[in-house]
Amino acid sequence: MTSASCATPLKTLLNPRSVAVIGASEDQTKFGGRLYKTLLQHKYAGEVYPINPGRDTLFGLKTFPSINATPKAPDMVIMALPRDKVKGEIAACAARGAKAGIIITSKFSDAGPEGLALEREVVAAAAEHGMRLIGPNCLGLISPTNKLVLCSSPALNVPSLIEAPIGFVSQSGALMGTLFDRSYGMGIGFSHCVSVGNQADLELCDFVEFLIEDERTQVICSYVEGIKSPQRFVELARRARAAGKPWLMVKAGATDDGSRAAYSHTASLAGDFAALKAICERENVVMMDDPLDMLSLARAMVRYPARKVRDVAVITTSGGGGAISADQLSHAGIGLSRFNEATRTGLAEHYSEGQASNPIDVGGRKHEGTDELGVVTAELALADPATDLGLMVLTTAPDVPGLTRQLADGGERPAAAGKPTLYVMLPGRVAAPAREILVERGLPYVDTLAEAMAVLRGWKTWSTYQEPDAPVRPAGSAATAAPADGTLGEAASKALLAKAGMPVNGERLVRNADEAVDAAGTLGFPLVLKVVSPDIAHKSDVGGVALNIADAHDLRSRLAAMQASVAKAAPDARIDGYSLQKQESGELELIVGVRRDPQFGAQVVVGAGGVLVELLKDVAVLPAPIDAAAARRAVEGLKVAPLLRPYRGRGALDVDAVVDAIVRLSWLAHDLEGGAAGRDFEIEVNPLKVRLQGQGAVAVDARARIG
Amino acid sequence: MTSASCATPLKTLLNPRSVAVIGASEDQTKFGGRLYKTLLQHKYAGEVYPINPGRDTLFGLKTFPSINATPKAPDMVIMALPRDKVKGEIAACAARGAKAGIIITSKFSDAGPEGLALEREVVAAAAEHGMRLIGPNCLGLISPTNKLVLCSSPALNVPSLIEAPIGFVSQSGALMGTLFDRSYGMGIGFSHCVSVGNQADLELCDFVEFLIEDERTQVICSYVEGIKSPQRFVELARRARAAGKPWLMVKAGATDDGSRAAYSHTASLAGDFAALKAICERENVVMMDDPLDMLSLARAMVRYPARKVRDVAVITTSGGGGAISADQLSHAGIGLSRFNEATRTGLAEHYSEGQASNPIDVGGRKHEGTDELGVVTAELALADPATDLGLMVLTTAPDVPGLTRQLADGGERPAAAGKPTLYVMLPGRVAAPAREILVERGLPYVDTLAEAMAVLRGWKTWSTYQEPDAPVRPAGSAATAAPADGTLGEAASKALLAKAGMPVNGERLVRNADEAVDAAGTLGFPLVLKVVSPDIAHKSDVGGVALNIADAHDLRSRLAAMQASVAKAAPDARIDGYSLQKQESGELELIVGVRRDPQFGAQVVVGAGGVLVELLKDVAVLPAPIDAAAARRAVEGLKVAPLLRPYRGRGALDVDAVVDAIVRLSWLAHDLEGGAAGRDFEIEVNPLKVRLQGQGAVAVDARARIG
Repeated sequence: MTSASCATPLKTLLNPRSVAVIGASEDQTKFGGRLYKTLLQHKYAGEVYPINPGRDTLFGLKTFPSINATPKAPDMVIMALPRDKVKGEIAACAARGAKAGIIITSKFSDAGPEGLALEREVVAAAAEHGMRLIGPNCLGLISPTNKLVLCSSPALNVPSLIEAPIGFVSQSGALMGTLFDRSYGMGIGFSHCVSVGNQADLELCDFVEFLIEDERTQVICSYVEGIKSPQRFVELARRARAAGKPWLMVKAGATDDGSRAAYSHTASLAGDFAALKAICERENVVMMDDPLDMLSLARAMVRYPARKVRDVAVITTSGGGGAISADQLSHAGIGLSRFNEATRTGLAEHYSEGQASNPIDVGGRKHEGTDELGVVTAELALADPATDLGLMVLTTAPDVPGLTRQLADGGERPAAAGKPTLYVMLPGRVAAPAREILVERGLPYVDTLAEAMAVLRGWKTWSTYQEPDAPVRPAGSAATAAPADGTLGEAASKALLAKAGMPVNGERLVRNADEAVDAAGTLGFPLVLKVVSPDIAHKSDVGGVALNIADAHDLRSRLAAMQASVAKAAPDARIDGYSLQKQESGELELIVGVRRDPQFGAQVVVGAGGVLVELLKDVAVLPAPIDAAAARRAVEGLKVAPLLRPYRGRGALDVDAVVDAIVRLSWLAHDLEGGAAGRDFEIEVNPLKVRLQGQGAVAVDARARIG
Repeated sequence: MTSASCATPLKTLLNPRSVAVIGASEDQTKFGGRLYKTLLQHKYAGEVYPINPGRDTLFGLKTFPSINATPKAPDMVIMALPRDKVKGEIAACAARGAKAGIIITSKFSDAGPEGLALEREVVAAAAEHGMRLIGPNCLGLISPTNKLVLCSSPALNVPSLIEAPIGFVSQSGALMGTLFDRSYGMGIGFSHCVSVGNQADLELCDFVEFLIEDERTQVICSYVEGIKSPQRFVELARRARAAGKPWLMVKAGATDDGSRAAYSHTASLAGDFAALKAICERENVVMMDDPLDMLSLARAMVRYPARKVRDVAVITTSGGGGAISADQLSHAGIGLSRFNEATRTGLAEHYSEGQASNPIDVGGRKHEGTDELGVVTAELALADPATDLGLMVLTTAPDVPGLTRQLADGGERPAAAGKPTLYVMLPGRVAAPAREILVERGLPYVDTLAEAMAVLRGWKTWSTYQEPDAPVRPAGSAATAAPADGTLGEAASKALLAKAGMPVNGERLVRNADEAVDAAGTLGFPLVLKVVSPDIAHKSDVGGVALNIADAHDLRSRLAAMQASVAKAAPDARIDGYSLQKQESGELELIVGVRRDPQFGAQVVVGAGGVLVELLKDVAVLPAPIDAAAARRAVEGLKVAPLLRPYRGRGALDVDAVVDAIVRLSWLAHDLEGGAAGRDFEIEVNPLKVRLQGQGAVAVDARARIG
């Protein structure tokens, strides 16, 4: 279960000198038969030891009755034995000196506590001799780089493997096979694909780490159901970034229904999606919805590393294709590049009026039979400084392959400056020769506009990432000592916030009218009055909140009314007194808060407050502590952000104060987390009232739960 | 340009007894060569007259030097002549007695005013002899029902056409060819496909009408850039509905960028997208984003007509596939059906604990080698009363074709009650034999989850449609006489609204403090004061609005302050006086309004009001007049709808009053439209303050523009 003491590096494990296939066979209805044949078919260069007590040779290779009969200890063994035979065989292999094993068999920890216990015994049996395990309940691995296929999927029944610098780690074996098959058909290859199964020993992060270090891998793809080691995940994300290797991820369990399915599938608990998403955004691990789109993006990134993708030029064979592309780009938040004068003039030589702009419909050519129109068009559109990428949307046309070749040639002209292109091949059979041309020239393509949009969105996210600054504790703020466990009322919560440097409204606890009038002199009108009782959760339901108290006379009468109302509505409630608060004005209400995610630790939350909280679900989640620039980006990315800018005659609001509040809260969260590792906490300010620029923001209600 | 006097019905035009191909050839580099060969290849049963002055025979058929040399007048002619030869040839064909012609040639109205003039002359030349035209600037037609192919696209180079009851009308020729090609590869056929081009004579609605009447068409697909005859569009939508034929539509120009592309492509102006969307929602024309998804939905609807699709059961070969499916269904707003006890018990016989629920992973089987597990699973999942559709998500697996056959068998068991299934074939080549099985059995499939979601969303929209009641003018309201053209200030706008039966707040125009105090006695405090001036657009910018005026003393001082402030900020403004208004309370602010869409006429709008208008863009657009039930559905579909229900201790708000206001506004819009046909108008109420149930809603600000 721990992967700490990995005696043999994964690099060696995944490139074994010899492989033993337990239960090898020539019978293609059996797992051992399919696996053995596939291994031989792809010309693995190392030694293969088929293990089968009933045969002397299999497909011409000398066959051994047991693992103990092989000439040397194999580096790798693979098996799909019935569950009750796995432990014994693994023990034998480990004792023999096998370095690693793949267990395909399922019904271990994926099938409940009894299976989990057995799985632990299997891992222990291997670990006793330093043997490492992949699986159980996995589909094995495919390593085109090493010509090593240890996977029985029918998807592997192909003439030859395509090697490409894309690594793929999958928590679902069936998806690995499926994606291998689909991507093979699109000319997409891999360096290594690994199905990690139950991750009893080696886990997803081990393989990601390997891919980061692997010279033959440039882009890392992953299908994830749950993260086993959050801290390692974060550390690896940083290493991938430092290595300049994009890490793409499809995460199942984004929704309630999805989580349930993931849970019933594997032994891994799907973590809190929002928390993981926040971490991924901070660390630039790109989350995608669909695994095939992820592979299409990987192919594009491999072809055009380190390119920024924001605005695209569309070149199409059909005005209709251009119109639909423009619609879909707009929905996806990708801009159409605005061509400059030179580009428009260049295009106007070849295109009718109104057609010499983005999107460009090559059908709108001015003269029939312009030679090499595709070359000129692609070159001009890509050469424009505003264009980051050329999106070639092809429909049926008299000579799709010819046009494809022209566009590709144009994209390779020096003026195009090596800018990325992505082809969208809308026809089926008619475009098959054109697809072949693209595969030959290593140019990325997809088959639908929806896939293109997913690729562009992911690419934009990755390439416009801004490395966060190291968070700095705000001036004049010291670490906050963690309070004792418990639920904190409004006053205690605000006191904790004030200690962390958050502005809170002035407040006094009073017990009667005279005390109230006395306190009002200090606080100043207008005032708010709230009943304070450990027994009353919803104060306004019992008439326990009074707003806009204008003067001493008003205060006395409103307090008397409140006492009467509360006594009637909650006769048994213990009344600690009444909280008299300065009524604060504000132009906008936000909600801010902190919580501890069980996997990823302290997080800060900011969003639309007041009645809008539940309505808009307009919230940014950020790992704590956070630097001011990232806090500002989060605030400016909220749906309510337009209300922070000058609006209907009033000036801009005090975003600096909001950012400062978030940063301070994030440090409070950090301190609470550090104070007692693993202790749970949750603090919510709603509303934080935001005033005009220079006038600050203030917390007027808060609650907290510690431990 | 008019299609009123269609002497020959389209049914006959699209099923001609003879076709003349102007410029026929054997040369496959020429349009006439490709078209002629394709026509012959698909075994058109009528007479073919190749026209080519230089040849006696072409591909063995007697060839004629001109249209005048053919033995009879052809029912149909097709040509792709250079533009300057089109008019003469059409005139000759019309004179010869041809009933219809297809003009492929472009650069007519699609290329500016000069082309438009020429196009009109061509239409006139045809009309002189009652000849009808398709195009120009089109790709022709494909009619598998009539074995008639008048289209040169390489997509038609297939061994045989697939006939299916799907009709397709396209404003883009290239998209027609593209979709024909792609759908052919998926086993999707058509009754008729028509590319309408510039619609100089016959237009999109003519062909939709034909498809509604056509016995061989069950589902109508359309790709639309702009609607030429909105009223006819609405009328046809109703006829399609009455005929039980779903009408699906992809509309280009949904966004600004899309509109620009559509505009530069054809001569048709993309209409206001929101207005068209409102009409489509009312008339149950299903809008989709992607044309391929539209065809996939059409195929599914043809296979399972008149089925309601809301909640689905997912059956998958992979837990990962199930998890991702559940996520995507949740995003798409499609539910997972909740199995009842009987289904769960039935599944539990075959599946491990925790796997006998929706989504079902057939890999989670309890016993290896259960025969026909797929049959039992599909039967149980579909038989469950909560299941409307079975979504079969297939990954690579040892025997995908076998499982596919089992699932299909299960779906045909009587217990499954003929419920729809949709297969998602995630692998590529490995699933090819399984795709063939599905095509043979006429079962719909798609290749990605994204496509499946688009199909399910469209199907749900269509099948859960509620036919609107006929709108009824509210009791006690008479037709509102249309006011004169002009921009109406707040008072005049509110007077117009009040005449239509809308509740507005009490208001008096005053000129000085004494008049104000006098009026206040009638209105009652608290009050609002607003400056009234034709020269001041934004009253609050000049200090021209005062709220919460508590008493006479306050009124005098606030009026004096306003006079000073306005005099300073807008010294030259003409001041008509000051509007003193009752300050109305309300729990929620909505915006309501009416406008005239240039294409679809009177419309009513309702949405989140106050500061939320621009923020949420939470608006429903509805054609006016509207019935109360539809108004209620629109209000309840708003993002702010949760605030109309009981919320944080307060009761529900007066939705009845909001509905009544919308209905009355919609009749006002109707009356304004009727009063002077084609006159533009726009009335906006913001905010409409909504109070607690039984306490009504009131318009507190309004403006209007008539003419």
